[in-house]
Amino acid sequence: MTTVDPTSAPSTTPSQSPSPAPSLQDAPHVDVPALRDLLLGRWADVRRQARALAGREDLQKIEGQPWGEHRERVFGQLHTLVAEGAVHRAFPTRLGGQDSHGGNVAGFEELVVADPSLQIKAGVQWGLFGAAVLHLGTEAHHDAWLPGIMDLSIPGAFAMTETGHGSDVASIATTATYDPGAEEFDLHTPFRAAWKDYLGNAALHGRAAVVFAQLITGGVNHGVHALYVPIRDADGAFLPGIGGEDDGHKGGLNGIDNGRLHFTHVRVPRFNLLDRYGSVAADGTYTSPIASPGRRFFTMLGTLVQGRVSLDGASVAASKVALQIAVTYANQRRQFGSGDGEEEVLLDYQRHQRRLITRIARTYAGSFAHEELLARFDDVFSGAHDTDEDRQDLETLAAACKALSTWNALDTLQECREACGGAGFLSENRLTGLRADLDVYATFEGDNTVLLQLVAKRLLTDYANDFRGIDFGAMARYAVGQAADRTFSRSGLRQAVQFFTDRGDQRLAVNALREEGAQRALLTGRVEDMVAEIAQQLRSARKLPTEKAASVFNSHQHELIEAARAHAELLQWEAFTAGLATVQDPATRTVLTWLRDLFGLTLIEENVGWYLMHGRISMQRARTLTGYVNRLLARLRPHAQDLVDAFGYEQPHLRAAIASGAEAIRQDEAREHQRRERADGDAPVDEKVLYARDAGRRRA
Amino acid sequence: MTTVDPTSAPSTTPSQSPSPAPSLQDAPHVDVPALRDLLLGRWADVRRQARALAGREDLQKIEGQPWGEHRERVFGQLHTLVAEGAVHRAFPTRLGGQDSHGGNVAGFEELVVADPSLQIKAGVQWGLFGAAVLHLGTEAHHDAWLPGIMDLSIPGAFAMTETGHGSDVASIATTATYDPGAEEFDLHTPFRAAWKDYLGNAALHGRAAVVFAQLITGGVNHGVHALYVPIRDADGAFLPGIGGEDDGHKGGLNGIDNGRLHFTHVRVPRFNLLDRYGSVAADGTYTSPIASPGRRFFTMLGTLVQGRVSLDGASVAASKVALQIAVTYANQRRQFGSGDGEEEVLLDYQRHQRRLITRIARTYAGSFAHEELLARFDDVFSGAHDTDEDRQDLETLAAACKALSTWNALDTLQECREACGGAGFLSENRLTGLRADLDVYATFEGDNTVLLQLVAKRLLTDYANDFRGIDFGAMARYAVGQAADRTFSRSGLRQAVQFFTDRGDQRLAVNALREEGAQRALLTGRVEDMVAEIAQQLRSARKLPTEKAASVFNSHQHELIEAARAHAELLQWEAFTAGLATVQDPATRTVLTWLRDLFGLTLIEENVGWYLMHGRISMQRARTLTGYVNRLLARLRPHAQDLVDAFGYEQPHLRAAIASGAEAIRQDEAREHQRRERADGDAPVDEKVLYARDAGRRRA
Repeated sequence: MTTVDPTSAPSTTPSQSPSPAPSLQDAPHVDVPALRDLLLGRWADVRRQARALAGREDLQKIEGQPWGEHRERVFGQLHTLVAEGAVHRAFPTRLGGQDSHGGNVAGFEELVVADPSLQIKAGVQWGLFGAAVLHLGTEAHHDAWLPGIMDLSIPGAFAMTETGHGSDVASIATTATYDPGAEEFDLHTPFRAAWKDYLGNAALHGRAAVVFAQLITGGVNHGVHALYVPIRDADGAFLPGIGGEDDGHKGGLNGIDNGRLHFTHVRVPRFNLLDRYGSVAADGTYTSPIASPGRRFFTMLGTLVQGRVSLDGASVAASKVALQIAVTYANQRRQFGSGDGEEEVLLDYQRHQRRLITRIARTYAGSFAHEELLARFDDVFSGAHDTDEDRQDLETLAAACKALSTWNALDTLQECREACGGAGFLSENRLTGLRADLDVYATFEGDNTVLLQLVAKRLLTDYANDFRGIDFGAMARYAVGQAADRTFSRSGLRQAVQFFTDRGDQRLAVNALREEGAQRALLTGRVEDMVAEIAQQLRSARKLPTEKAASVFNSHQHELIEAARAHAELLQWEAFTAGLATVQDPATRTVLTWLRDLFGLTLIEENVGWYLMHGRISMQRARTLTGYVNRLLARLRPHAQDLVDAFGYEQPHLRAAIASGAEAIRQDEAREHQRRERADGDAPVDEKVLYARDAGRRRA
Repeated sequence: MTTVDPTSAPSTTPSQSPSPAPSLQDAPHVDVPALRDLLLGRWADVRRQARALAGREDLQKIEGQPWGEHRERVFGQLHTLVAEGAVHRAFPTRLGGQDSHGGNVAGFEELVVADPSLQIKAGVQWGLFGAAVLHLGTEAHHDAWLPGIMDLSIPGAFAMTETGHGSDVASIATTATYDPGAEEFDLHTPFRAAWKDYLGNAALHGRAAVVFAQLITGGVNHGVHALYVPIRDADGAFLPGIGGEDDGHKGGLNGIDNGRLHFTHVRVPRFNLLDRYGSVAADGTYTSPIASPGRRFFTMLGTLVQGRVSLDGASVAASKVALQIAVTYANQRRQFGSGDGEEEVLLDYQRHQRRLITRIARTYAGSFAHEELLARFDDVFSGAHDTDEDRQDLETLAAACKALSTWNALDTLQECREACGGAGFLSENRLTGLRADLDVYATFEGDNTVLLQLVAKRLLTDYANDFRGIDFGAMARYAVGQAADRTFSRSGLRQAVQFFTDRGDQRLAVNALREEGAQRALLTGRVEDMVAEIAQQLRSARKLPTEKAASVFNSHQHELIEAARAHAELLQWEAFTAGLATVQDPATRTVLTWLRDLFGLTLIEENVGWYLMHGRISMQRARTLTGYVNRLLARLRPHAQDLVDAFGYEQPHLRAAIASGAEAIRQDEAREHQRRERADGDAPVDEKVLYARDAGRRRA
């Protein structure tokens, strides 16, 4: 699959001579093993180990398994993960962990290819429940509970979300009121909307929970804090004062026992407050190392960012699997003929190329972006780069990446499913199951729409510091207080400004859309203009009373979210571009550069109306866009299989009948049958041929 | 819910005076009962009966039921439908039917709200298997098998699709070779790719099948014909020579036993050829009332168009249910506050309005378009308007509507699911289950991508008759031969040309986007330009050899499909506009006109780049589009609940916990709790308030 396409010159390397016998080093092609290693990234070894595990049948999903059995199967699989030492990397070395945060997430997200329920249930146990004890508790808490959490003798729930409050964590209504007489907290659910909801491990397996509640002591509400609360006895019965419900069957992830919990004046020992960021003395005095309640809240929640990081990675992994399946099938499956000859391979159809190859490009962009996010995450959690600013950058980057890649995964899985026709709908071909399981990724660990508003808020405050203090009301409260005084250094916008300064005339920048600089100028220019425009319109709101300001803000909510999305796409494009520089083999780099161009140009094509209206691109140039994209598709088409093979998933990961080679065997058999019939003279005459001949006679 | 929005004047009626006490007749509002009746359409009574059935618990899906049990449940439900006399409307009166084709489809498609598996399994039995015997067989066949098919004593499969050929029916490889000695056909599957696949009723319940095969007699292949073939004995065992496989678990529709069938020299009596369009005499002589094999093939397949018609209707119905659920929730659910006050109702957020209200508009358009399609379908099948041209128009319209509305349903279900957050993911709220079941609607009964190419082919041949005879190769073969010499009379394009002739200057047409004429001019102009542009570029291909021509054609496949989509959207817009004229109440018509404007303007907004590049809209006008759409959203917002309530589905159809009123009760309880706490002086002081006060002191 290292075919050279001699008809079209590559855009970023000198024209190739198609003959005689071009050297494989020079001709555009993909060095699959090298690219595979590159994509495995910094934690390649961990990923390889995790993929080996994910390839084991006993850790994989059985499609169509009744959900009660599926829940038990996944719970059993968690024990297997413990036995294999696969899930403790993030925990302290002194307790048997490795203090490796990036590596932990890298390994964890690969589990999605075995069963997304396994990935998420493991995430609940160790990434949320365990991580909350680790990050929000202190050493005494670690000693008390981490060993049991790590070895799964204490399965636990992460009880943050309430039926009445999803993404707005600050508004949860569960209370933990300190009683200095008893040195206990009184944990209480005041009304039905305050029930904890959607909690993995809550319906069946959880023995304890980290419960988030408004901490009240001495008549003051100190905001949301977390407490460690046993919820079930050894027989699995709820402890006194605790009740709950099963969330029942879901659209996917049915290997997880999501449920609801509520608390009726449950007494919790003072020790159980996870008090790294806020503690209560025996007499009820509250102290915290962080004076500002707002900053304290965001610091506490910020320790849980790894959920978003790993959803980003898992979404990219699922997209890779889907594309490897659909492209393999599209290279073997034939449908409709070109006249009387052989039927066409699906991927030779232009529309099919557009459906799949543009998504290969986007998935590469998402893959490179995730690798950057993971590195940033490890920097912060390893302590290597752990300033307030680093944490805020990480939050913003994680929000942008998670929103985009979870949506992209759903879109890619659906397009791949439809591109495989009826076969794509069968569970034996994986695509529908993965899509159903990943559906909720778009709204959990932060609703994507809310996350993009968080990114938008950051873009605004970066743009102009005076937006910092405004309570936008309708804006996710989560975002308030996150802003810092800083220009666009991290978001790449400073470069954009620089670019335009250098060139003087913006039109120059789009003289050649295939130039990296031109793509960057267009993509950054769009974010910059959108943010500046909105900021201009919101400026008046700064002086209005909160409610009025919120209304003005709301009237620009759609544009704000679109600006955030444009920014996130720019981040992906920058990551892809940075990734190109790490590709050693020039021939591979050529192909990947086309792919990056395809990604950049389809982003511009999707928003060409905006670019025209803002004078960023000329009419003439805009009209050439689609044609250029089509030429890139044709150029990339011979490399499509290599590009998905470089994702590195193998048959035990793909597990799709249509990507097993069975289709090629069927096609060969059919063609051999027809060839033999013709050779033997056995083939019946087609009535159409006779009819056409007779029609000719009738005319004559 | 008949709130008047006094802040913005409606676009198409004189300005409303908001006070004093505007008459309800004049102020924009929705007369819900009247609109509900209007939407029920020509076969309102049938729909009401079908909805009453769909509201019965014993006919409804149990989410999460193991698929083996689900299959048996649905099979049992088919017997209930027989007992209720709900599925025989299309069959001959003399056999107990009603010869009512439009009414049959209207009733049948409403079953989707009970369980899509029930709709589709009923569709397999009576709409495909039964309809094939009805339309492709003759009276003797009707007498022999229809009674058993109607009363379900003969459950049957519709064995057309093969593993190797989905949408390309002409290329199926199963053969039925006539043996004059035995007066039997030899039915044979020559290789694995020719196995029949994805057939409902094939895995378990089917006792017979209508099998499509290449009919060979006297050494001539007369093309695809259908035979009635018993496949299982009374004990459910395969008859000799017949084998099969279960397709297993699927992404949805698991109440249906899809499976595969293959035939090893199975002997079928001559009588069993469904020979209305092609018969074989005892001596093997083939005769047909249709001389052209191409026309014969399309006539035979054309009798099965009702599958597409009913998928269109069912998709619209599912979109309505989804929107009724999501809008009801969005009007009760509160999230995030505007400052210190009450939290906002979700539907007050601009982005939420854009997510849901634009889809209400599209669903109205789809609903009116479906009603037109259904009438056209009934005209043809009742014989009222049954020329070749009528049938071809029906085919094109059905292809366009089915492609758009099945995709729209998936998009609407997904957006509604995400708009309901985590609650949307629970099966108890219906959205994920409906989405999973409807997923395959996008590719069965004709892959949407193939159907749009069929529409594109028609647009091209309408545009220029000389495209008629070309074999485009890559184009769906299904489409070849369908073309007729005719201008854009049916597709609405003649009107467009007329419009521009009248006005002289195209720019004039967009002076006011809210004018119906301006929207029509823009939408039709786009289709016209796109088709003309492609035709220009393809003109050269007419003289090329088939293979070369196919390649030129392929290089425009993407644009062709986009043109077909634009045409389908125009059809929906025209149907919506025609529907407005049937609304009696002026106040309701005002609101619906805004909704139609919203539909038209979002279509233009999505393609604003195209309109700019083709000089159809000025930069200045384009810049006002998004603002105008936002103002329409704000204007429609108070009517959103009425607009979805007018869809007329009730609690037994919605069956969503979040749309039951439970959310409003929870919200009221929470607010009452907070009110009481404040009144009693029990509420703790917020640390943030103290911190802000202290900060003030520190500064002082």
